[in-house]
Amino acid sequence: MNNIKFFDKYTPNTTYLSIEVKDVIYSKSSKYQKIYILDTEDFGKILVLDESIQTTEMDEFHYHEMIVHVPLLTHPNPKKILIIGGGDGGCCKEVLKHNPEKVVCVEIDEEVVKSCEKYMPMIGENSFSNQSVELKIDDGIKFVEYDNNKFDVIIIDSTDPVEIAEGLFSKEFYSKIYSKLEKDGIMVCQSESPFFHFETLKKVRNYLNDIFPIVKTYLSYIPTYPSGMWSFTLASKKYNPLIPEEIINKRLKERKINSKYYNAEIHNSAFSIPEWIKHEIIT
Amino acid sequence: MNNIKFFDKYTPNTTYLSIEVKDVIYSKSSKYQKIYILDTEDFGKILVLDESIQTTEMDEFHYHEMIVHVPLLTHPNPKKILIIGGGDGGCCKEVLKHNPEKVVCVEIDEEVVKSCEKYMPMIGENSFSNQSVELKIDDGIKFVEYDNNKFDVIIIDSTDPVEIAEGLFSKEFYSKIYSKLEKDGIMVCQSESPFFHFETLKKVRNYLNDIFPIVKTYLSYIPTYPSGMWSFTLASKKYNPLIPEEIINKRLKERKINSKYYNAEIHNSAFSIPEWIKHEIIT
Repeated sequence: MNNIKFFDKYTPNTTYLSIEVKDVIYSKSSKYQKIYILDTEDFGKILVLDESIQTTEMDEFHYHEMIVHVPLLTHPNPKKILIIGGGDGGCCKEVLKHNPEKVVCVEIDEEVVKSCEKYMPMIGENSFSNQSVELKIDDGIKFVEYDNNKFDVIIIDSTDPVEIAEGLFSKEFYSKIYSKLEKDGIMVCQSESPFFHFETLKKVRNYLNDIFPIVKTYLSYIPTYPSGMWSFTLASKKYNPLIPEEIINKRLKERKINSKYYNAEIHNSAFSIPEWIKHEIIT
Repeated sequence: MNNIKFFDKYTPNTTYLSIEVKDVIYSKSSKYQKIYILDTEDFGKILVLDESIQTTEMDEFHYHEMIVHVPLLTHPNPKKILIIGGGDGGCCKEVLKHNPEKVVCVEIDEEVVKSCEKYMPMIGENSFSNQSVELKIDDGIKFVEYDNNKFDVIIIDSTDPVEIAEGLFSKEFYSKIYSKLEKDGIMVCQSESPFFHFETLKKVRNYLNDIFPIVKTYLSYIPTYPSGMWSFTLASKKYNPLIPEEIINKRLKERKINSKYYNAEIHNSAFSIPEWIKHEIIT
């Protein structure tokens, strides 16, 4: 009997994705948010935070590979990586494929980490237990204030820019990120759907353009996110992310990376964005 | 009072896109299908055929520009164009931007043409009235049997491969299309969502690979189609669709084409497809 449906709200004017739920595996209100892990026929297990799908077993790699491999393959030698958010472990799993020396993961909500490790282990694949990984349960905004380390790549794997994640989309935060990057460092953040949240994308780009010399937006197909068209914005102190395919393929081979979504062609193609988006943002 | 919702079925296992309807502008059962034109807050006017969204005011150009401009800009001089389906007029509108000598549009359902011209004129922009356009109300499968003309480009703008459109996804039909193309002709068809309908895409490619020397699949973001990730498959007798951007830009300038989604970068990038899709199809 499947009489539970989950509704992912796409717009305030009431467009929803409606998914039939086989089983509610986990349901808890943490200190920060409502967490659900749902089992579904169409997408396997789904992590829901504050009413929005964060990741699903079926298409998690569309998101995690694209937020991680584009900046990490732009960087010739990424050794120290900071992930802010990403409590499901998906980003950390992909980062580990690059054989980094040190990965610091700062997730505000311990319940997300615990529930995903227990009920959705296929997302993180136990990556937080890797000896090069340091997991901190803390607010990313506070962490960048007190921590003194510098990083080659910083990945901001946040929820939507409301509630606890709002500060992760601010100019002040991006300035802190800039100062925590090495001289040739790169940051990336998820910057929402250009179709449904264009103002957020424009704001993120404007802030980053004031701080970094190189700012570029790229896209990925993420079927379980609103509109299926998702943007990431990369900001870089030195390296341009548009690089010859031979170089990307050489790095993929050296680092022995296997992927299901990402490849060298996709790396560059993802930066080709539709005319109506280009028209409003300078890429 | 908005108490009507439209549900677009994404999977048999009951994932739906649910859209609040402001007004049902048109509703009719034609000889072939149930037609609705709905007015919505989020997507403007929507054309629904047999329960599925065909096009919306908000993102019609994502679909129509990509199904038309990719083959027509691959061809150096497309003068005679055949469109099968496309009763909403969106393809015809984009084709006319290339200054063709002759466009033949073969739509099976006159009610689609009439209702779209009356209630969604922004899609077709009166293109069927253009002097170079010949609109035939007929079954595309029959048309390719009796018609003796040859074309430079044939566009198959069909509904999903069920009911009346099923025959438009058959090997027999593609063989007829081959014989109706000039020696350097190109055809393109919409080949569904790789995420939800991968078997259809594979079947289309297998059939076309048996008939044409060049077969390539490309992708477009179409927010109101299932998964937002939509595929088109192009089959060509002579021209490879991967062409230098300078050539595309030269053709765009010569033909004075303005676009909202398509551009020269997108043209080539759209052929970069995720690893899991590549793995199963030869591109």
